Amino acid sequence: MSANPSSPPVYADIADAAARLQGQAVRTPLLRNDVLDARLDARIFVKAECLQRTGSFKFRGAFNRISRMNSEEKQSGVLAYSSGNHAQGVAAAARLNGTTAKILMPSDAPRAKVEGVEFWGGEVVDYDRGRDNREEMGRAIADAEGRILVPPYEDPFIIAGQGTAGLEAVEQMAEFGEAPDIVVCCAGGGGLIAGVGLAVKHHHPDAQIWSAEPVGFDDYRRSIASGRRETNERLTGSICDAIITPTPGELTWSINSTQLTDGAAVSDEEALDAMAFAWRHMKIVVEPGGVAALAAVLSGKIDVAGRSVCVLATGGNVDRAVFAQALERL
Amino acid sequence: MSANPSSPPVYADIADAAARLQGQAVRTPLLRNDVLDARLDARIFVKAECLQRTGSFKFRGAFNRISRMNSEEKQSGVLAYSSGNHAQGVAAAARLNGTTAKILMPSDAPRAKVEGVEFWGGEVVDYDRGRDNREEMGRAIADAEGRILVPPYEDPFIIAGQGTAGLEAVEQMAEFGEAPDIVVCCAGGGGLIAGVGLAVKHHHPDAQIWSAEPVGFDDYRRSIASGRRETNERLTGSICDAIITPTPGELTWSINSTQLTDGAAVSDEEALDAMAFAWRHMKIVVEPGGVAALAAVLSGKIDVAGRSVCVLATGGNVDRAVFAQALERL
Repeated sequence: MSANPSSPPVYADIADAAARLQGQAVRTPLLRNDVLDARLDARIFVKAECLQRTGSFKFRGAFNRISRMNSEEKQSGVLAYSSGNHAQGVAAAARLNGTTAKILMPSDAPRAKVEGVEFWGGEVVDYDRGRDNREEMGRAIADAEGRILVPPYEDPFIIAGQGTAGLEAVEQMAEFGEAPDIVVCCAGGGGLIAGVGLAVKHHHPDAQIWSAEPVGFDDYRRSIASGRRETNERLTGSICDAIITPTPGELTWSINSTQLTDGAAVSDEEALDAMAFAWRHMKIVVEPGGVAALAAVLSGKIDVAGRSVCVLATGGNVDRAVFAQALERL
Repeated sequence: MSANPSSPPVYADIADAAARLQGQAVRTPLLRNDVLDARLDARIFVKAECLQRTGSFKFRGAFNRISRMNSEEKQSGVLAYSSGNHAQGVAAAARLNGTTAKILMPSDAPRAKVEGVEFWGGEVVDYDRGRDNREEMGRAIADAEGRILVPPYEDPFIIAGQGTAGLEAVEQMAEFGEAPDIVVCCAGGGGLIAGVGLAVKHHHPDAQIWSAEPVGFDDYRRSIASGRRETNERLTGSICDAIITPTPGELTWSINSTQLTDGAAVSDEEALDAMAFAWRHMKIVVEPGGVAALAAVLSGKIDVAGRSVCVLATGGNVDRAVFAQALERL
């Protein structure tokens, strides 16, 4: 480890992460769709991170962080807590870097996500959402076993790793002869949008960066408006489970507060409609949290007419029952 | 038009088609999946033609054929009959080449497919499957209006256009440092597999080319075994509607008979299971006919252990109800 874990990353860290991820992460396609462009009267480019290894962008940051561990650290392994995409990204990155992962997951986590971690040899440690304090449990394990905690977003290597998705999108748009006027990205803790914003702004300083969040969990949208980190009232109650966090991270906010133009908040119904659109017209599987940015443009929350717009579709790990709900809306 | 419409295409025609399709067709991604490779103990590369414009590979051949029309021919337009992917490919290719398309579709064609044709300005002409002879109707319209018939596979430009998918796959595998030992491709009339085989064999003469078909509609598999064009007993009764044809085409068979190694036949259940696998692990939407090749390897019908295998996933235009059936099998 060379970087200071509390210093925000800069563009060079993203370029460095991209070199690390070469041959490990998928250079996911940037998809165009004729129906989408016609409906919005715009040129929309969808960065399909649902096609990333482990089904979401989380692999990028996890791999970048874990690949920096020295051999002594790798002996002890890593630890993470997550019920979803970060868990699978960390488990895969640990295996591919020759170390081990313990993942704290709630005992009611979907079977498919537990299996995703186990496929990569990750050891799942159950906790009870009602009874256990996962942070305390995690700290106890980390202390006892010398494992390094891999946080979901408050880490410069994680942010730089996620930013490689934005760097690729900029390069891929250039192959189409395009530059983004607007970039729309979902925001939970804000690691992805921070890294993507850094990458995009480096090449296109005038590009607008918009966050997309669920209605009622739009802490980023409100924080941009007020200029300080706002907190959501609740921590449950949206179908977009992957992007519900209490408040912007300190480190991520130090970046995002200087880069974000504005935010859009989408309803569960708008997310489901966007999932159905992606299924029907684009032939990709996107989860509710991962489709928030597409939902924001499809529902007209961001004025994109006549513009070149990059939309991130960030993950595809969705339960069958939720997906069926989306299809029923067609 | 320069080529003789009854002469089989050669490799140079595919390279020429690739140049025509530049900037028009999507260079669809070649996807890898860790779960798939682990399950089959092989290196599997899935050419995701479901992500092609109009949702299937059919756009490639249609565009290549229609782009060869002279301005007089374009004044009169084209005609096709198809209830599915070919219809949408022809409608899109006609619009993009500045001509018009009339498409004969059965009156019970799914609404989504009719809308797909209409999106591209194609004029849909209904016929009654029980009462009307669509070939006679088509001939009458073509004669009266001077429209050129765009056949689904018996045409050298169509075959060469479809072959560009195989050419791309070979190039993309080379980027991974790989060459195909085995290529698996669904076969209806056999235009796609003929073109893909030509492209693959040019670069890798020893590669095996396998057809994948529905059980009971495995005319290619049986024709390879007997050495002559066999006919299916029925024309309905498989969920893989996109690849049901009575017998190999004459032109396509003249190519395929020299290139195909063997064929595999998959059941409806195996196709549905492969669709569910692609949804869950790969995050792509594949229709029953389009998933036949993946089903053939997942069900163990082709011995792929230790090999580099290219599998074509050829389309994603599937009805919601059929897709729901697949998800229920998870």
